[in-house]
Amino acid sequence: MTVALVGAGPGDPDLLTVRAARLLAEADVVVHDALVGDGVLAIVSPTAELIDVGKRPGRPIPQEMISALLVELGRQGRRVVRLKGGDPFVFGRGGEEALALQAAAVPFEVVPGITSSVAAPAAAGIPVTHRGMSAAFTVVTGHRRAGEHDVDWRSLAKVGGTIVVLMGVAQRASIAAELIAGGLDPATPVAAVHRATTEQQDVVRCELADLHATAIDSPAVIVIGPVAALNLTAILELSA
Amino acid sequence: MTVALVGAGPGDPDLLTVRAARLLAEADVVVHDALVGDGVLAIVSPTAELIDVGKRPGRPIPQEMISALLVELGRQGRRVVRLKGGDPFVFGRGGEEALALQAAAVPFEVVPGITSSVAAPAAAGIPVTHRGMSAAFTVVTGHRRAGEHDVDWRSLAKVGGTIVVLMGVAQRASIAAELIAGGLDPATPVAAVHRATTEQQDVVRCELADLHATAIDSPAVIVIGPVAALNLTAILELSA
Repeated sequence: MTVALVGAGPGDPDLLTVRAARLLAEADVVVHDALVGDGVLAIVSPTAELIDVGKRPGRPIPQEMISALLVELGRQGRRVVRLKGGDPFVFGRGGEEALALQAAAVPFEVVPGITSSVAAPAAAGIPVTHRGMSAAFTVVTGHRRAGEHDVDWRSLAKVGGTIVVLMGVAQRASIAAELIAGGLDPATPVAAVHRATTEQQDVVRCELADLHATAIDSPAVIVIGPVAALNLTAILELSA
Repeated sequence: MTVALVGAGPGDPDLLTVRAARLLAEADVVVHDALVGDGVLAIVSPTAELIDVGKRPGRPIPQEMISALLVELGRQGRRVVRLKGGDPFVFGRGGEEALALQAAAVPFEVVPGITSSVAAPAAAGIPVTHRGMSAAFTVVTGHRRAGEHDVDWRSLAKVGGTIVVLMGVAQRASIAAELIAGGLDPATPVAAVHRATTEQQDVVRCELADLHATAIDSPAVIVIGPVAALNLTAILELSA
């Protein structure tokens, strides 16, 4: 195995998988995103080369270049970890990188990570499903790229489960408007979780009708649905 | 911390979180479901008491009894791990147990696990989101309990993302019929992943129109959408 596409989870290094922690400790080179925090990077092998390909505003690195880099590093026979926040296959573009590696016949594996879409709500005391409240949850990105298939928010409003929006802080006004136009109750509870499971974690709660006017720090995971009113954290400690 | 509600992930013990592995190694008592496999149970402290509360057909243990057991064990001050397949808050009824512990003022924490809804498709080479194919995914249970809110499958058919059905093998005919009635293309690719990430893993693929007549071993995770046609596993090894 030369290239591992590894999920780093939501932020707390204790929420890495056993396999991810082992691969990071043994890696020759780690190619990571901006979303991967210092706590996780601290467990990378001290002899490993760290390459930051975080797509920050103003200097985006094209996905094709990142995929080409992984192919090149993999062909060198080095132990390469491609480390992504959350899970590689949940808006992580891991599928594109896997396709590139497959096409180049570079051996690879995919190591799932704890997705922030479930763990960020949990860190705020919110279960994405709950008996009598929600029998489904939809994870959707608020961020739209050219060529991206769009989601029918008005139909989503009628499904009847929890809605979890990733990368949607900037688009929250239009998202809320579409969901209300689709029939979702304007009084539906909403919670936004910033930097979940880290020391900077912050939770903001409001109703759907007030989401557009509520200050939320980005990045955040936005949870929409009756479960967002729950707060099962009174005596919870994530990193004891 | 006395009671930890811990996700065991999809099956492979390497996909436990670092924190889950540590808690299992230090536990005094582990209360687990039938879905938790032998590979994960093998890393439990050899001195820990194991209590199987798996709700097998024919002898279901009421959820209220499980919650009461956790409260009682927690009050004894023992290090209790409540171990659930996947993630505690994804159809794991962890919310009900957390509410019971909170009401009884028993200290607890929630440790997310890798949800099978994402990892089972990944183990079959299927990303639940993929650029140009799917910008959302909905996780829904096919299993309906009395008092459970229902999901509007016909609206779900119009959302435009990947649909992941847990515990839906028995209901797959009615689910497919509802989705097709809602406008989903009968030729939509489907993949069913049985016992993902274990040695018994098996993947069955078909089109939505043929799902009712396709033999699938339960339990399985059923993935519905264009991404189900992908197979990014040619040179993937999950447990190398």
